Amino acid sequence: MLELRLVQGSLLKKVLEAIRELVNDANFDCSSTGFSLQAMDSSHVALVALLLRSEGFEHYRCDRNISMGMNLNNMAKMLRCAGNDDIITLKGDDGSDTVTFMFESPTQDKISDFEMKLMDIDSEHLGIPEAEYHAIVRMPSAEFARICKDLSSIGDTVVISVTKEGVKFSTKGDIGTANIVCRQNSSVDKPEESTTIEMHDPVSLTFALRYMNSFTKATPLSNQVTISLSNELPVVVEYKIAEMGYVRFYLAPKIEEEEEETKPEV
Amino acid sequence: MLELRLVQGSLLKKVLEAIRELVNDANFDCSSTGFSLQAMDSSHVALVALLLRSEGFEHYRCDRNISMGMNLNNMAKMLRCAGNDDIITLKGDDGSDTVTFMFESPTQDKISDFEMKLMDIDSEHLGIPEAEYHAIVRMPSAEFARICKDLSSIGDTVVISVTKEGVKFSTKGDIGTANIVCRQNSSVDKPEESTTIEMHDPVSLTFALRYMNSFTKATPLSNQVTISLSNELPVVVEYKIAEMGYVRFYLAPKIEEEEEETKPEV
Amino acid sequence: MLELRLVQGSLLKKVLEAIRELVNDANFDCSSTGFSLQAMDSSHVALVALLLRSEGFEHYRCDRNISMGMNLNNMAKMLRCAGNDDIITLKGDDGSDTVTFMFESPTQDKISDFEMKLMDIDSEHLGIPEAEYHAIVRMPSAEFARICKDLSSIGDTVVISVTKEGVKFSTKGDIGTANIVCRQNSSVDKPEESTTIEMHDPVSLTFALRYMNSFTKATPLSNQVTISLSNELPVVVEYKIAEMGYVRFYLAPKIEEEEEETKPEV
Repeated sequence: MLELRLVQGSLLKKVLEAIRELVNDANFDCSSTGFSLQAMDSSHVALVALLLRSEGFEHYRCDRNISMGMNLNNMAKMLRCAGNDDIITLKGDDGSDTVTFMFESPTQDKISDFEMKLMDIDSEHLGIPEAEYHAIVRMPSAEFARICKDLSSIGDTVVISVTKEGVKFSTKGDIGTANIVCRQNSSVDKPEESTTIEMHDPVSLTFALRYMNSFTKATPLSNQVTISLSNELPVVVEYKIAEMGYVRFYLAPKIEEEEEETKPEV
Repeated sequence: MLELRLVQGSLLKKVLEAIRELVNDANFDCSSTGFSLQAMDSSHVALVALLLRSEGFEHYRCDRNISMGMNLNNMAKMLRCAGNDDIITLKGDDGSDTVTFMFESPTQDKISDFEMKLMDIDSEHLGIPEAEYHAIVRMPSAEFARICKDLSSIGDTVVISVTKEGVKFSTKGDIGTANIVCRQNSSVDKPEESTTIEMHDPVSLTFALRYMNSFTKATPLSNQVTISLSNELPVVVEYKIAEMGYVRFYLAPKIEEEEEETKPEV
Repeated sequence: MLELRLVQGSLLKKVLEAIRELVNDANFDCSSTGFSLQAMDSSHVALVALLLRSEGFEHYRCDRNISMGMNLNNMAKMLRCAGNDDIITLKGDDGSDTVTFMFESPTQDKISDFEMKLMDIDSEHLGIPEAEYHAIVRMPSAEFARICKDLSSIGDTVVISVTKEGVKFSTKGDIGTANIVCRQNSSVDKPEESTTIEMHDPVSLTFALRYMNSFTKATPLSNQVTISLSNELPVVVEYKIAEMGYVRFYLAPKIEEEEEETKPEV
């Protein structure tokens, strides 16, 4: 038996909106430690990993590990019926082919039960090793979303270049070129507006803006985003979820020699 | 001669928006007691009845009963040109084939006259007898609109079941099922947020959500909606219009034996 | 060399949004006195004239007169990437086939460079003589925009008639007719809400609403619009730009004898 009660139900709504553009169907894995998901996007280019730790739930009961295959668009349709202040409880029975989402309004005057059919989904769980990154950028998530959207109006790819002074986002397209530099800036007053850079080696990598824009659907989950870059590894774009866990997106850089040669200096 | 002056002109704008999705052309009937309309929707399934009593107008002059056929989309186009704070005066002359809407801004600095051609529309006036209903639910109109919209993302019909404790809205569709229960709750502080149930017999009836969603276009007219249910009668969904009258929607229940058998218990 | 630094960068964003619906490609002319543009709309019916005087820029350097051909949609794409509080600097080098827009955030933490390719555009500069107008109407720009939009839902042309008492906007279409009268009203409290009329001769002229609606894209630039009318001249619809200059739109009246005969009296 499974029963997970999340007082801040809007978090689960935001998680679904964050990942459903990339992933259509996925297995949610439930164990005593938490509620998680790992899935490739439908074109098998990007990887999404979600973790909601059991401690973050008001009530968390998971008698044995289970994996529940869900269509994320259908799940999002149901979660959109929850009010933003509702408590959401996810319920499952062993061997059942359905999962139930219960929504309780803060006053308890409105109680909803949405029962959704589960699916059988083949999936392989990839081990993602902890890694050392050449550079880690922390910046306001809304700023990162704005930059990815702005650059998309000019080009298809973004070159992310990190130096000690700052991080530069560049693109080029038919109508011209664009470079946006964000300087390191650890304002103590408003930590959520700070941009901080932890750099071991300068790094300059190229990514498809289409995926970056999909990742930024997670912006409502967190004021800050962490971008971890390394020459040999996929970039990790991470949004922390309150005290509970994270959504992480992984994307391999594009290997474009010309891009590298002509790339502008920070 | 006809001259109806409505200080709160936005009411007439809202009335039009409330009914024009269901009804394309209709006769507005004007008598000494008030301004009214009765019309079937274009698929002849639902009935709309509107009443604006003469006492609600600042000035009301109607020398003899007349019936004016109007295209509601054209009328809505003209009323949308009135400001939300404008005074609206409706003027007609005996035997004329036009009606004039005059809009006066609160400062009287802007005066508009919109003249619209009238139409000949065949219509039969149905007598709607006063009836006893098994159950009458009064609830916040925005909550009812939200529920109809939410359930539409899951299924096509809604089963409305009333018990003394509350009212349940249920649907089922390809992706699963949904039940939403609103408990009776007469908060004295904010009467517009209360849900009250007046029940003589339990009742459980099925309706097409498509029509229910059209009815909820009247939500801006009133904080509360009244849903009157009976096994032998069409449901009445009523929105009161300030001190002036109402918009009422009538819809026959669907007879679906299977639905009845598998319907969930409140 | 060219370097124009505009502290209130949002002005330039608004200018582009004001004119790009009418004009696709145009030459921006830069001289020691200011930054200007004159262009016909793509159907060669309306004329747009823009002036931003050099005094309005924080820094203005223009070593010799140059004319830069730009695609206004591409320019708007780049300017949309500037924040509303950003400082915008426009930079060009003699003989270069590109122009650079630099955006600086107020905190200087984000610096963007957008480089756009220039185009060769044939254009003839029309001399627009200063003229005497029969009537000059000054009114709130939002009110004028609302009237043009409202009348468009009824008809295709607007008759603008001016008397000492006020200005009347009229249209007719398949569904009926509309007349909107704005009375002269020089409220001292809020000059931006006043309507003033300077009239030498009564005038009544017909214009295509489609163009008037395009002109009203300039509404965010100014609280007031000035409409200068004369029987022998194109109307001038002018939006002042703070202390810096203006956007002016010129449109020839329609010669429609029937319209004139049946035109309603103010």
